[in-house]
Amino acid sequence: MSTAATTPAPDDQARPESARRIVVVGGVAGGMSCAARARRLDETAHIVVLERGAHVSFASCGLPYHVGDEIGDAERLLVQTPQSLRAALDLDVRTGHEVTAVDLERRSVRVETAEGAFDLPYDALVLAPGARAIRPAVEGLDSPRVRTLRTVEDAVALRGLVDDGARRAVVLGAGFIGLEAAEALARRGVDVTIVELAEHVLPPLEHELAHLVTDELRSLGVTVRTGVAASAIEPGVDHDVVVLADGTRVAADLVVLSVGVRPSTEVFEASGIACEHGAIVVDEHGRTSAEHVWAAGDAVVSTDAVTGVRRPVPLAGPANRAGRLVADDILRPGTARPIPAPLGTAIVRVGGLTAATTGANRAALDRAGRAYRTLHLHPLQHAGYFPGASQVHLVVHVDAGTGLLLGAQAVGDDGVDKRIDVLATAIRAHLHVDDLIDLDLAYSPPYGQAKDAVNLAGMVGSNVLDGTLRLWYAEDLDQVRTEALLLDTRTVAEYATGHLPGSLNIPHTELRGRLDEVREAAQGRPVRVLCASGVRSAIAHRILTQAGLDSASLSGGMLTLRAALGDRASSTLVTPALVGA
Amino acid sequence: MSTAATTPAPDDQARPESARRIVVVGGVAGGMSCAARARRLDETAHIVVLERGAHVSFASCGLPYHVGDEIGDAERLLVQTPQSLRAALDLDVRTGHEVTAVDLERRSVRVETAEGAFDLPYDALVLAPGARAIRPAVEGLDSPRVRTLRTVEDAVALRGLVDDGARRAVVLGAGFIGLEAAEALARRGVDVTIVELAEHVLPPLEHELAHLVTDELRSLGVTVRTGVAASAIEPGVDHDVVVLADGTRVAADLVVLSVGVRPSTEVFEASGIACEHGAIVVDEHGRTSAEHVWAAGDAVVSTDAVTGVRRPVPLAGPANRAGRLVADDILRPGTARPIPAPLGTAIVRVGGLTAATTGANRAALDRAGRAYRTLHLHPLQHAGYFPGASQVHLVVHVDAGTGLLLGAQAVGDDGVDKRIDVLATAIRAHLHVDDLIDLDLAYSPPYGQAKDAVNLAGMVGSNVLDGTLRLWYAEDLDQVRTEALLLDTRTVAEYATGHLPGSLNIPHTELRGRLDEVREAAQGRPVRVLCASGVRSAIAHRILTQAGLDSASLSGGMLTLRAALGDRASSTLVTPALVGA
Repeated sequence: MSTAATTPAPDDQARPESARRIVVVGGVAGGMSCAARARRLDETAHIVVLERGAHVSFASCGLPYHVGDEIGDAERLLVQTPQSLRAALDLDVRTGHEVTAVDLERRSVRVETAEGAFDLPYDALVLAPGARAIRPAVEGLDSPRVRTLRTVEDAVALRGLVDDGARRAVVLGAGFIGLEAAEALARRGVDVTIVELAEHVLPPLEHELAHLVTDELRSLGVTVRTGVAASAIEPGVDHDVVVLADGTRVAADLVVLSVGVRPSTEVFEASGIACEHGAIVVDEHGRTSAEHVWAAGDAVVSTDAVTGVRRPVPLAGPANRAGRLVADDILRPGTARPIPAPLGTAIVRVGGLTAATTGANRAALDRAGRAYRTLHLHPLQHAGYFPGASQVHLVVHVDAGTGLLLGAQAVGDDGVDKRIDVLATAIRAHLHVDDLIDLDLAYSPPYGQAKDAVNLAGMVGSNVLDGTLRLWYAEDLDQVRTEALLLDTRTVAEYATGHLPGSLNIPHTELRGRLDEVREAAQGRPVRVLCASGVRSAIAHRILTQAGLDSASLSGGMLTLRAALGDRASSTLVTPALVGA
Repeated sequence: MSTAATTPAPDDQARPESARRIVVVGGVAGGMSCAARARRLDETAHIVVLERGAHVSFASCGLPYHVGDEIGDAERLLVQTPQSLRAALDLDVRTGHEVTAVDLERRSVRVETAEGAFDLPYDALVLAPGARAIRPAVEGLDSPRVRTLRTVEDAVALRGLVDDGARRAVVLGAGFIGLEAAEALARRGVDVTIVELAEHVLPPLEHELAHLVTDELRSLGVTVRTGVAASAIEPGVDHDVVVLADGTRVAADLVVLSVGVRPSTEVFEASGIACEHGAIVVDEHGRTSAEHVWAAGDAVVSTDAVTGVRRPVPLAGPANRAGRLVADDILRPGTARPIPAPLGTAIVRVGGLTAATTGANRAALDRAGRAYRTLHLHPLQHAGYFPGASQVHLVVHVDAGTGLLLGAQAVGDDGVDKRIDVLATAIRAHLHVDDLIDLDLAYSPPYGQAKDAVNLAGMVGSNVLDGTLRLWYAEDLDQVRTEALLLDTRTVAEYATGHLPGSLNIPHTELRGRLDEVREAAQGRPVRVLCASGVRSAIAHRILTQAGLDSASLSGGMLTLRAALGDRASSTLVTPALVGA
């Protein structure tokens, strides 16, 4: 053992004998939030941050924008340095310091650096090691042209490859980071193919919204391949070839690996700290199974606020907030707020679109066996008569019995982040869908409508729950086509732009005078109504149901149906050309 | 009496004997929402909408944008017509129909039209007459150059005056409509003076935010005169002259009167319907004192959700939602949701700025005798390293004891509407300030920060309530200057751009090593710390208070102090030129 091995960390401040040593492993989101808060609560503590990488407190979420040259200078991604943190917060921050073991009995961590190893005792230990990229079992993944996008060095390297002439890229994985990477590369003029094993891009998003994102990616020039895995990467001299499971071969000057992350916890699990599926188990204050040891961030198990499912949630916001609350529990035991269960709120910009989600999606609710209703709306983000109005494509899931808000997603050109943040607040506050009617949101023509998109979701949801409105869904289409009369209440001109074969077209404004036609066409079958977005068909439903007909309105109308059909829309709908033929 | 006088309204639909007649007085926000909802609930009812004006369902909030030519075609402001409402909703909508009396015993209204008068019986009567412009006792106000901005005709006329060469305008009243009118006229190249009796523009806004709006108005070329009334308008041949109480004379080719509105209720009060200060008294379902009579919108008394104060709230959003709930109570008695108490959420665009408010302001809380704490923050709307970052100037009021959220206001270039909507949702859900820490808001660099502005407000508020952070306020400046040491923790370069005389400058990064200097300068006095925005001074406060000093941090820092001083900032702060002198 070198002398360094038994020397505790140096500290240039004279501290009282009683000063506690708080050791934080990991210097990015959760770890650095914890260290900063700890200092604000306790001037005397010795707070050491050990980061295995070259940088602390860097802008992890900003990396794709450096690749895409929206953030030109990589220095901008370094939000803090060990020096600035020493000056402002008297933190003892050490990069290139990797923790390789924890001795829980002796309360010390083993630290390895380029200069040697040493043991560092702690009074409180905070584990915020984060996550690292999942490396799937794909042959050739160790090619030097395969890169991840997790660190500043990764971003600089990827950008360097483009600067050096890379013109073809394959992005493996179409999650949030994958989409950001694909867009960034496309912005640089790179020919991008994105490959996703799931049936659609952004797997957490509902398919009827994800297809809008696919369309946007295509408009950026990105080739989208979903429902297929990469089976091998064949390295070459000039370029690699990515081979897909269906045999497709895609030439690539670089490959971005973004199929997800997994907690970086082997060292801690081996040291005896309880883990679950590789993630550190913590209580509501971030306490691990070991005394004097806390954990926060991407490496810990969280309990989903809606479904109760236990899983790691690798998101910067919850990590930052949890780190802060861990410091509270260390320094103010017994009084700290519990770390909230995450809603998994996430957002991504793709070209001119924004896609965002909060709370549970359909798959999570199905897995949890929850009975729920889904609402689809396409309201404008601001007054229709004001320039720049565009639609917010909104999906809201509510408890089928109580109307409790369970999850929401949205895609659109503008105003998406606002509606998702309002809905995330409403879900956190345990509001029910009819409470959304009462939200007193800021209205003037540039910002919203007198009945905001969120108010409208409340009105539709309330109508659905009390039976005023009965919905049918795009997923029911095959059954509906065999068992019901499809009544299309759009105008004759809209109908001509594409409609379901066999559907009867009666504009909603003419319906009251043409009920006999409906009865005749229905021949005792139920009537399933649709329009463009679900507004006019809901009015028609009220007319039909009060006329004694078995009626229901298509949730989200043709807009949702087309998106749900995706690439099948053209073969399912009767197009004008076919009508003419 | 003509035959029309005894003939009930014609109706081209054959309705069952049992069909109810619902008569709605007023065809814009509340009235039309009520009529539309009533139809969706009841296909058989005869629903008559009586509008005294020439248009129904017009875009009242869009009028200024037609004057400013952002909405070029006035037709766009006509969202619905009697014909479209007949076709879609089978409503019997009549413009140019003024109700001049209600016979509560016989259940009928007297209607006057250009063609004559008649009585119209009702089963249910809904009063949504709205409000009209207040006309203050100013001599010369009947000059034809004095206009209001309440109807489509008003907007067309104002725009016409500009088209015809009006080049100087005075806007009386700097509330929401006044500011929109001033900006619209300035966009058209008109030389605008805006006159406000209150001490600052946008009286509902806190003064430290309002000054930011004043600066923006000035940058648009608008002359802002506050704390002064118009005393007379002197008509002339070429132009009028607006005479202010301080003797200033302003030449005007047109004058916009926008000093506020008052409920238009004389007819109904005279008919025996209970009113309070001229507004119709209703219960939580919109029921008036008279059986079978409901009311909604600008003409009714509301009970403020935070302070309990009773007053009319002339806002489009609450009116629209209340109208809908009135229809529910008429047609589904006993099951309708109560009409929510309004938060008074409002928003206005002024040049590149947005200003918005929700819940109670300082004046309302003071009047209500409520003990509260105020937080000032200036966080960025999105990641600082992402292009286009700008500050959201945020004020939040919380209950001093419980931390219950009472009100919030914000001004900034971007992201203001989102934060106010999130806070309006939080207030409606009765959240406390520390609950804001836990909101799981959508974060990626183009949309927010890992700790969103709203999360940060929660953290600051929580610190204030539990004593971790002690604040002092810009309003305390005079007292602080006489009794305390002012410690400015900005950098030396920032300090040189303007600082308080007598303040000691120690950058926060040097404070730990220079505590003796602070003690020496303080000579036993309290230390009152400040920085640019309140972030660094809060860190300094923690250092000082743990060193045993009596310390407090300036809420909102120099940014808030400068705005609170307004035009007095230049004489209060020591500027570099004076330092050099």
